[in-house]
Amino acid sequence: MSWQELDALGHKIEALEHADAILSADEATHMPTGGGQKRAEAVATLAAMTHELASAPEIAHLIAAAHETDLTTDQRLALGELGRTYRNLTCLPADFVRRKTEVNMRTEQAWRTQRAQNDWAGFAKNLEEVVELAREEAFLRADGLGLAPYDALMEQFDPGNRTADVTPLFDSLKAFLSGFLPEAIEAQNRRLKDRPRQPLANNYPVENQRRLGLAIMEKVGFDFEHGRLDQSHHPFCGGVPSDVRMTTRYETKNFLPALMGVLHETGHALYEQGLPKSWSNWPLGKARGMAIHESQSLFMEMQLARTPEFWEWALPLVREHLGTDAMSAWTAGDILAHANHVEAGFIRVYADEVTYPLHIILRYEIEQALIVGDLKVADIPEAWNAKMIENLGLSTLDNPKDGPMQDVHWSIGAFGYFPSYTLGAMTAAQLWGGRRKSSAELARRYSPGEI
Amino acid sequence: MSWQELDALGHKIEALEHADAILSADEATHMPTGGGQKRAEAVATLAAMTHELASAPEIAHLIAAAHETDLTTDQRLALGELGRTYRNLTCLPADFVRRKTEVNMRTEQAWRTQRAQNDWAGFAKNLEEVVELAREEAFLRADGLGLAPYDALMEQFDPGNRTADVTPLFDSLKAFLSGFLPEAIEAQNRRLKDRPRQPLANNYPVENQRRLGLAIMEKVGFDFEHGRLDQSHHPFCGGVPSDVRMTTRYETKNFLPALMGVLHETGHALYEQGLPKSWSNWPLGKARGMAIHESQSLFMEMQLARTPEFWEWALPLVREHLGTDAMSAWTAGDILAHANHVEAGFIRVYADEVTYPLHIILRYEIEQALIVGDLKVADIPEAWNAKMIENLGLSTLDNPKDGPMQDVHWSIGAFGYFPSYTLGAMTAAQLWGGRRKSSAELARRYSPGEI
Repeated sequence: MSWQELDALGHKIEALEHADAILSADEATHMPTGGGQKRAEAVATLAAMTHELASAPEIAHLIAAAHETDLTTDQRLALGELGRTYRNLTCLPADFVRRKTEVNMRTEQAWRTQRAQNDWAGFAKNLEEVVELAREEAFLRADGLGLAPYDALMEQFDPGNRTADVTPLFDSLKAFLSGFLPEAIEAQNRRLKDRPRQPLANNYPVENQRRLGLAIMEKVGFDFEHGRLDQSHHPFCGGVPSDVRMTTRYETKNFLPALMGVLHETGHALYEQGLPKSWSNWPLGKARGMAIHESQSLFMEMQLARTPEFWEWALPLVREHLGTDAMSAWTAGDILAHANHVEAGFIRVYADEVTYPLHIILRYEIEQALIVGDLKVADIPEAWNAKMIENLGLSTLDNPKDGPMQDVHWSIGAFGYFPSYTLGAMTAAQLWGGRRKSSAELARRYSPGEI
Repeated sequence: MSWQELDALGHKIEALEHADAILSADEATHMPTGGGQKRAEAVATLAAMTHELASAPEIAHLIAAAHETDLTTDQRLALGELGRTYRNLTCLPADFVRRKTEVNMRTEQAWRTQRAQNDWAGFAKNLEEVVELAREEAFLRADGLGLAPYDALMEQFDPGNRTADVTPLFDSLKAFLSGFLPEAIEAQNRRLKDRPRQPLANNYPVENQRRLGLAIMEKVGFDFEHGRLDQSHHPFCGGVPSDVRMTTRYETKNFLPALMGVLHETGHALYEQGLPKSWSNWPLGKARGMAIHESQSLFMEMQLARTPEFWEWALPLVREHLGTDAMSAWTAGDILAHANHVEAGFIRVYADEVTYPLHIILRYEIEQALIVGDLKVADIPEAWNAKMIENLGLSTLDNPKDGPMQDVHWSIGAFGYFPSYTLGAMTAAQLWGGRRKSSAELARRYSPGEI
């Protein structure tokens, strides 16, 4: 009986989460701006209802009772995962969740306009509220889980992530990159001297880029019976496994950013579309952690899509959909010179494999200072700037839009998420490395120095 | 306290209804087909949760207690409306609502394909299930409200509608039309002999028609900050007052159907966008009945958009967006000859003001027979055909797609809704008649025989 009750409860929670996922995707892709306030109210109310249902005290008893019954191995694993998510949920009172959801949603809506207007002062006011709630949340979670506050935030996104493990790893990565980045750029400069890059800039209509994205998604296995591609301010992969809502954003002068965005989100989408359907109403049927999720997106975007084979295969598709006169002469090598170009830049999502971790580590450090109260929201631009100068030699003070306002994460209170990206990137690199080792063909082609 | 509790409950119900409204609109406009099954499950589960919340036994006590407190007139009216909707809701057990919602949603999804394939046999199988549930529902409602079964169904859409009033009205209308329709066609034939209609047929790209629709919507007052226009198999006006989701469908050879669809749904949308926002979480803030709702859409589509003034005003917009060579010579009169053309046709939503009620009365009669068990689903095509021949001289047996499969209503179990259309049409005609009487200018222009 306890099992059936938990299964039925799972169906209710799945329905509420389905609503939340589609409402959120709709909000970022199709909702008229005036619908925002009521949408925020509705989503906040639904989140509180979900939270109330999923954190009800009787669930602890049902889980305990179910453990005493005769279960399959999968059922036992499902109960274990449910117990873990239940412990995470019961840290926060329902009223807090409602407040938090409403503030975050309002801030995200404001962020869209404020970012476009480069309005840090306006955004900071909204962010203050978000950060205050995030601190409260971190301490509530820390209390409930017996963890340090920032660890307790990471725990939601990647069970087991601890600063005690992540910080030394990131520190050694940062130390390595401080030597490797100048080396890579020097080697690249020597190469570029012999063979300068062909410019990819041109006029690429959004509709053509969209068709190219759709064509590539299809080829790499995206199931359009169970998903679609839209456009939004910040690319995301949302929706539900049976109806994945993916987005990208377009620059008309360069087709690579949107296409790389598509490849990244397609990695997420394939992971979602591949989740076990029969467990869709249990945590067991959901992503285990965001590092693994990101490893799938980054395997696609940062490993696969940076190889000669990929571009030899993709170039005809690019020509078919974007075909311009200049493009007919391009080789895969011409695109690779851009795709694998290493350059210190402002924007995380456009960063290359070498500089990307530095963007993440910067955020990881600032987040921790914000959460424990060592840093005020008002001081973010200076802290950001100092780290950008130290890590990448770039000043961001005069352009917060491409500095601390560039990501959606903080506006929605998702502190503790960023480390998952770099852990995912490292996982993706290891997956690709493993693939190389296990395939004689790949090992031969990717011997050092060949690319 | 009782008032505050009801108000808070209203917010929860509003959030669930918001989710349902947007999920349903999304389902018909953006959802990939493979998302249908999980969507149906989610919406059904949410509907059952809404029903459980809104029909909880303590609400009766809260309403009674609130009546004893000091209330404003509006609050008293709000309580009265809540009591009425509560009585309607408590007729159905939550489990029945869940079952019904799931079957209806599945049937609607099937209908889309089956209609396109003219597959009556396939549809009939789905419809059997829907009709069985609708009968059960009618008897449950009849029991709860002390009404006859079909009256109890109409009661949800238009409080107070009774066959005892509607049937005599429809009978006399049918009797009148049996003489008036041939008369109108004869008069029209005489007019057409003197001045044949210019053909409007041409190639009108969907995107141009869409832009024309958007332009007209804006001019007649649709608020695009709080709504949008999409495309769907069956035009509808859904969403919520702060975010109205309107659709139309396009024929590339004729622009009038899509435009008339846009005008019709805009009438609904203006009514929704004009609802009192401060009561959005109470039934008082919602539409009182569907006849009044339809009167707004039909005033726009069937009264306003059939006048010379409208087309004198609209023709430049039509030219601007659809501009074809043939069109430059058109006059408002050329379009009016089409807009006011009377002709017995198969499709309800394309019917003119004269034949439209005959489509409705046919459905009204068939529905009643289905609900009380005098007619089986398998016998619908014959019954439909017999009435189409009797009323309009048209046989539909060989083309069920344009016969009993043309409307979405039955697939979603909305029996008892159709009469509201003609009651709304009559209301719209009276509103226009009243406007004529009260305006000397209109009275002069619309003296009999002038158009």
